Amino acid sequence: MRSDVEHFQCSIENGIARVALDRPERKNPLTFDSYAELRDWFRDLHYADDVDAVVFAGSGGNFSSGGDVHEIIGPLTKMNMKELMRFTRMTGDLVKAMVNCGKPIIAAVDGICAGAGAIIAMASDMRIATPEAKTAFLFTRVGLAGCDMGACAILPRIIGQGRAAELLYTGRAMSAEEGERWGFYNRLVSQEELEAEAMEMARRIAAGPNFAHMMTKTMLAQEWSMSIEQAIESEAQAQAICMQTEDFTRAFNAFVAKEKPVFEGD
Amino acid sequence: MRSDVEHFQCSIENGIARVALDRPERKNPLTFDSYAELRDWFRDLHYADDVDAVVFAGSGGNFSSGGDVHEIIGPLTKMNMKELMRFTRMTGDLVKAMVNCGKPIIAAVDGICAGAGAIIAMASDMRIATPEAKTAFLFTRVGLAGCDMGACAILPRIIGQGRAAELLYTGRAMSAEEGERWGFYNRLVSQEELEAEAMEMARRIAAGPNFAHMMTKTMLAQEWSMSIEQAIESEAQAQAICMQTEDFTRAFNAFVAKEKPVFEGD
Amino acid sequence: MRSDVEHFQCSIENGIARVALDRPERKNPLTFDSYAELRDWFRDLHYADDVDAVVFAGSGGNFSSGGDVHEIIGPLTKMNMKELMRFTRMTGDLVKAMVNCGKPIIAAVDGICAGAGAIIAMASDMRIATPEAKTAFLFTRVGLAGCDMGACAILPRIIGQGRAAELLYTGRAMSAEEGERWGFYNRLVSQEELEAEAMEMARRIAAGPNFAHMMTKTMLAQEWSMSIEQAIESEAQAQAICMQTEDFTRAFNAFVAKEKPVFEGD
Repeated sequence: MRSDVEHFQCSIENGIARVALDRPERKNPLTFDSYAELRDWFRDLHYADDVDAVVFAGSGGNFSSGGDVHEIIGPLTKMNMKELMRFTRMTGDLVKAMVNCGKPIIAAVDGICAGAGAIIAMASDMRIATPEAKTAFLFTRVGLAGCDMGACAILPRIIGQGRAAELLYTGRAMSAEEGERWGFYNRLVSQEELEAEAMEMARRIAAGPNFAHMMTKTMLAQEWSMSIEQAIESEAQAQAICMQTEDFTRAFNAFVAKEKPVFEGD
Repeated sequence: MRSDVEHFQCSIENGIARVALDRPERKNPLTFDSYAELRDWFRDLHYADDVDAVVFAGSGGNFSSGGDVHEIIGPLTKMNMKELMRFTRMTGDLVKAMVNCGKPIIAAVDGICAGAGAIIAMASDMRIATPEAKTAFLFTRVGLAGCDMGACAILPRIIGQGRAAELLYTGRAMSAEEGERWGFYNRLVSQEELEAEAMEMARRIAAGPNFAHMMTKTMLAQEWSMSIEQAIESEAQAQAICMQTEDFTRAFNAFVAKEKPVFEGD
Repeated sequence: MRSDVEHFQCSIENGIARVALDRPERKNPLTFDSYAELRDWFRDLHYADDVDAVVFAGSGGNFSSGGDVHEIIGPLTKMNMKELMRFTRMTGDLVKAMVNCGKPIIAAVDGICAGAGAIIAMASDMRIATPEAKTAFLFTRVGLAGCDMGACAILPRIIGQGRAAELLYTGRAMSAEEGERWGFYNRLVSQEELEAEAMEMARRIAAGPNFAHMMTKTMLAQEWSMSIEQAIESEAQAQAICMQTEDFTRAFNAFVAKEKPVFEGD
């Protein structure tokens, strides 16, 4: 997996990719370029064998301020419908690419996490935050609807329909404490611990079984709107596939030998 | 939008409609007449340009005791299936009309909030309550099922499947504290503050952008049973539509001018 | 309903069935035999008139340790795909049978509740636990995916998508306190009170109206992936059916006579 990207930070080590928006002086806004490059990077990730988990971090004490007002909002006000659809589909494609990339994504959220930044956190699988995290789906503040990049579908499933409605209608910030209580954040840690904690969670997950993790991620999305019966049949198939991996046998052999299993991802 | 209704209270001021059941001596029960008139009123609201948010309030310290035992339950026990279906579809149509009216609805819940009253609170977008609020989906207490007016679909999405199951099987009251903890209530305030707080939330939302709020409400319902991919494409379309409103340009211009945007709803 | 089962405990009294895995020296693992017999028993329950609620209990201070490593995992590592699918469909069929049995199921969880044991708790309608309950969806620990027996569909609806993702990717134990806070457990009680509390909840539910309870259970599953509009129409039909039961009339008559209704299930 390539880490030579232009419009965001990216480093890969021991199967864990760390990505981050990096314009701390402006609280790490998204631009047309970083949207597109992130989308392409997460699409490529689907085929990568050398990355098993992703940490999406911030920079300079903030996660991301979302779409840049001057570089994105301004131009959008002048576009025709064909151009607007190209933009909204590109941003939606970033979420699709994150959901379909096959690797668990952990967002490490500190400070401002707003607009498209909040969407990136939401579209991650898990979220760790600091008490200073302020997450706002503030689309209404710029005259837009809360239905951006999947928010009306995904946010209610994370924090509940009533809380999601308030955040999406009002654009108000969700505090870190609310976020933890409501299930948006998996846990809160201090700013000093944030990156280490997110990397540690990534390491534990990247230790495998990674084929199985890919299947868990696939099915969490795949079963979104299935009936219970369809979901159960789909899992019967998905898990049977996993039962033919060597990692399953490795786990059994390790158990019998009273050892810790070493997974290899196949 | 008309406020000359017969079977419930209705007043409209500054784009905010306040509706309330109003027979405080009987804790504001619903009757055949108030069901039908509420349904028609919320249906008309869909086309109204002079109402941007709704506060659904109570009266005399209670929200609503639900379907009146003598005026509704008694007659129902004597109906044939054709008549029963006409009734259950009418009550369901009230929820559909609330969901489809295009304006955010805030329930202000105090005291008794039971049966169809609890459904009205549930079918609202947001809910503010007092510590005295007692919300009970007590259909089982009158020999009926918890599947009334959409409860088995909507309640689990607000408070979670396990908690909803308990409330629907047992009919027990959910306390205000539970309701806040579980995401049914967006917040708790004292009885003295309840109406002011609900009106204030309505005012903040009614300040716009109202075309966008209508779209948020539409998509929260529309994406209910879509796949993630379908939801993201639907939002790409819905948000592109919002990007062609003047309110979007107004917000950008206000930002550039370092002013607070004034939205006009188009 | 028969209680003469071979591979788990079963007793039926006053319309309440108590079932439990019972090999306390090994923390009540599931085996091929107990899976199949539980599946058949819950399938038969669908047609039983003498059981109105089920308590799924544990034994010896633990709920269940899940699929036995030696009796299940070992053999699975040697199966071909046809045999594996037969197994994963059988385990999925247990969840389907529990969801479709028409009687509310209350899991009484103490101690270890792991793997397929956690699934059985999840697939129950309600869950009561002790502070000592440790629930782990530990499929990843044996090299498998979190998508087992419906977990990727059902767990997110109970505790939220983000929390479910963490439990399914990491296999870590959810503490009793987390479980209550997240909506997995309906309440926590001491080990001394666990069985009595679960039986008391079962008794209150089994007091009826049981035809209506069956309909509530049916619709909670049936509306899982419906649109809001479809769900409301389905409930209009389901509730109209319940309005033609005698239990509905019994409740009304009892109300008029200022008595407590006695439901008879028809």
